[in-house]
Amino acid sequence: MSETARLIGVGVGPGDPELLTLKATRALREADVVAHFAKAGNASRARTIAADHIRPDAVELPLLYPVTTEIPPGAPAYCDKITAFYEDSAAAVAAHLDAHRSVAVICEGDPLFYGSYMHLHVRLASRYRTEVIAGVTGMSGCWSAIGAPIAQGNDVFTVLPGTLAEDELARRLADADAAAVMKLGRNLAKVRRALARAGRLGRAMYVERGTMFATVLVAGWERRP
Amino acid sequence: MSETARLIGVGVGPGDPELLTLKATRALREADVVAHFAKAGNASRARTIAADHIRPDAVELPLLYPVTTEIPPGAPAYCDKITAFYEDSAAAVAAHLDAHRSVAVICEGDPLFYGSYMHLHVRLASRYRTEVIAGVTGMSGCWSAIGAPIAQGNDVFTVLPGTLAEDELARRLADADAAAVMKLGRNLAKVRRALARAGRLGRAMYVERGTMFATVLVAGWERRP
Repeated sequence: MSETARLIGVGVGPGDPELLTLKATRALREADVVAHFAKAGNASRARTIAADHIRPDAVELPLLYPVTTEIPPGAPAYCDKITAFYEDSAAAVAAHLDAHRSVAVICEGDPLFYGSYMHLHVRLASRYRTEVIAGVTGMSGCWSAIGAPIAQGNDVFTVLPGTLAEDELARRLADADAAAVMKLGRNLAKVRRALARAGRLGRAMYVERGTMFATVLVAGWERRP
Repeated sequence: MSETARLIGVGVGPGDPELLTLKATRALREADVVAHFAKAGNASRARTIAADHIRPDAVELPLLYPVTTEIPPGAPAYCDKITAFYEDSAAAVAAHLDAHRSVAVICEGDPLFYGSYMHLHVRLASRYRTEVIAGVTGMSGCWSAIGAPIAQGNDVFTVLPGTLAEDELARRLADADAAAVMKLGRNLAKVRRALARAGRLGRAMYVERGTMFATVLVAGWERRP
């Protein structure tokens, strides 16, 4: 067991267990505690991806979201619950760090790019030795799975959440050479209308199986040498 | 030696050899030929990153740019030379594929995200069995190295080339929650002015050693729960 407290955010990539990095597998070999976020009642997707690399004797710390899409994210009840959840999660991780254990927090994709790990990082990184291991993002997994060159040269590339209003989506899609739209779910029809209004529907690709999430990609690189 | 022709774009990540994925190391173990882009007279950065995983008996195919920044990219002489170079490179790779060899083209970062591999992919993917192995991007390497949460929730994230005009950089920086500006080099002073005009200088971070390239990052996620 490590004698040194250390917090490690470990990106495990978009879903294919072979897309873990060598550094991620080493972090899992060395960690005393492996923490992972999941919705209560569900298996952690990060844990499923990394399963083969978690030591049988590692302590596991599941961090279970009390709420995800049942309450609208803007509602005060959502904010209160989710803030309390992140505070409690940070305290649970800190307890292990205070006991001189190393804690690997495994995350789908890349930890600091739209990932839950960030909520622990901002609460703990000033107090404990911290390392972040970059991972392959979900969107890279998508465009690689379908072999779609996404951006090149002087292209402007934009990541848009599908939760934006249709007008804003249309404006931003028209203003970018290439784009990835995430958080589709119930937003898919709206995203499709915004793509059509922006004149981007012909270049848009809907990727459902590239990773564990669905993504709409708009390929840039219109002038190929 | 493999009996099956296959083209494989292999992302080797932002610079740390430990950020290769397991899939990338397997592709290198299995490939008959390993191709890599470099400027004539320079070592390929992708090759340096992946060196430990290239088999001693693999055939290496260096693809050497005849020109990089000596001629302005818009000039006809540049376009002619660079197009001929990509055609010749594709032909050299195709010769190996026609001889039933598997060819791994190693690329810094992620092959289909602003990478040279794309120029081979668009010329060969319709004629040969092709696979793309996603890699950790240079920008993920940067924000992970400095532990900077880059985007969260409904943030809009934009990738901008530093080659854009100052007005356009300023407009786009003001319009995004989070951004990464690449291709800095001689554009750094202009990018700094654009950040100031967009009111983003206070949130901007200049990362020189995070990966082999310098990047300016603007962190989003202004409303942290």
